Amino acid sequence: MSASPLLDQLIEALRCLPGVGQKSAQRMAYHLLERDREGGVRLAARLAEAMEKIGHCERCRDFSEVPVCPLCASPARETQLLCVVETPADRLAIELATGYRGLYFVLQGRLSPLDGIGPRELGLDLLAARLAAGDVGELIIATNPTVEGEATAHYLAQLARQHGVRPSRLAHGLPLGGELEYIDRGTLAHAFGSRSEIPS
Amino acid sequence: MSASPLLDQLIEALRCLPGVGQKSAQRMAYHLLERDREGGVRLAARLAEAMEKIGHCERCRDFSEVPVCPLCASPARETQLLCVVETPADRLAIELATGYRGLYFVLQGRLSPLDGIGPRELGLDLLAARLAAGDVGELIIATNPTVEGEATAHYLAQLARQHGVRPSRLAHGLPLGGELEYIDRGTLAHAFGSRSEIPS
Ligand SMILES: [Zn+2]
Ligand SMILES: [Zn+2]
Repeated sequence: MSASPLLDQLIEALRCLPGVGQKSAQRMAYHLLERDREGGVRLAARLAEAMEKIGHCERCRDFSEVPVCPLCASPARETQLLCVVETPADRLAIELATGYRGLYFVLQGRLSPLDGIGPRELGLDLLAARLAAGDVGELIIATNPTVEGEATAHYLAQLARQHGVRPSRLAHGLPLGGELEYIDRGTLAHAFGSRSEIPS
Repeated sequence: MSASPLLDQLIEALRCLPGVGQKSAQRMAYHLLERDREGGVRLAARLAEAMEKIGHCERCRDFSEVPVCPLCASPARETQLLCVVETPADRLAIELATGYRGLYFVLQGRLSPLDGIGPRELGLDLLAARLAAGDVGELIIATNPTVEGEATAHYLAQLARQHGVRPSRLAHGLPLGGELEYIDRGTLAHAFGSRSEIPS
């Protein structure tokens, strides 16, 4: 279509990025070729390395290129606090917005039976093992305030109680139906600070 | 910041793409890692190859991985028609919208003295040599209907006349201030079909 088959292939490949259609992919390719080849070369290298080397932390399931991620391995974190989030972006948002110094567990999703996402897919066997080990005093449930997030929170609270661990939930104040990742820091910090224990 | 330095580097590298800020870069990286590693690996390879091998066609200045691009090398095109466009995207838009069978010349920009973009930066010495060679009968000037595009068109028309070549301009009907690349095919085809000779 263009004067260069390699360029057409690059444009096609760029469309694997979320939210990038034919027109944006074209603009991206032209921009890199005309104005930022260095950036393009660097991006190619970073992409290749990330796709090959990044797996999941065997403790928290966040993305990590080492078996246990730096945060889980840090001696400075309070091991009796465990905060469960749906995604790495949510973990990052809490880390930036609050003074939380405990550990995390990243579900990489939420319970969604219709999509075939059950406890196993979210690594809840791994979470149950951690709760059973007896190190965790409080399970802070920070799933999104959506229907599926609430159902997941309910399930997690039951799991915590089964192992004698106190479950808590971020304070109301989070806008319903919103995505935790996009909430402003102030609101998120407030909600995190006034989390409440989940009554039986 | 995240649990993976390689992931942070990937997010940073993705920001070289136009229109991609921190948040979008994060979403792109997570999406590739979680849902489309194959696409990420392919994109890395395509990017590296494109950045290394794509240069400019020595005849038309469009992107090309061979010295003379397939379009310029095609024996099926009418060599006495030469259409000047600002960008490869404009060339593609004309190719898709019209039945034009002549050749192209891609400026890769427009005259913009304040930005230091003069005739040399747009390869107009190369264009002048083609006009001087006597093969071109009509120079179709398809720069954008913007202030700078019009100034460039004026310059090109003079250049054509100096070499005894008839300059023409796409018909009015293009919305003023618009970008040629984004005009709907029907309008573009109509404007291309009713181009008019530029009076001295
Ligand atoms: Zn970890
Ligand atoms: Zn060419």
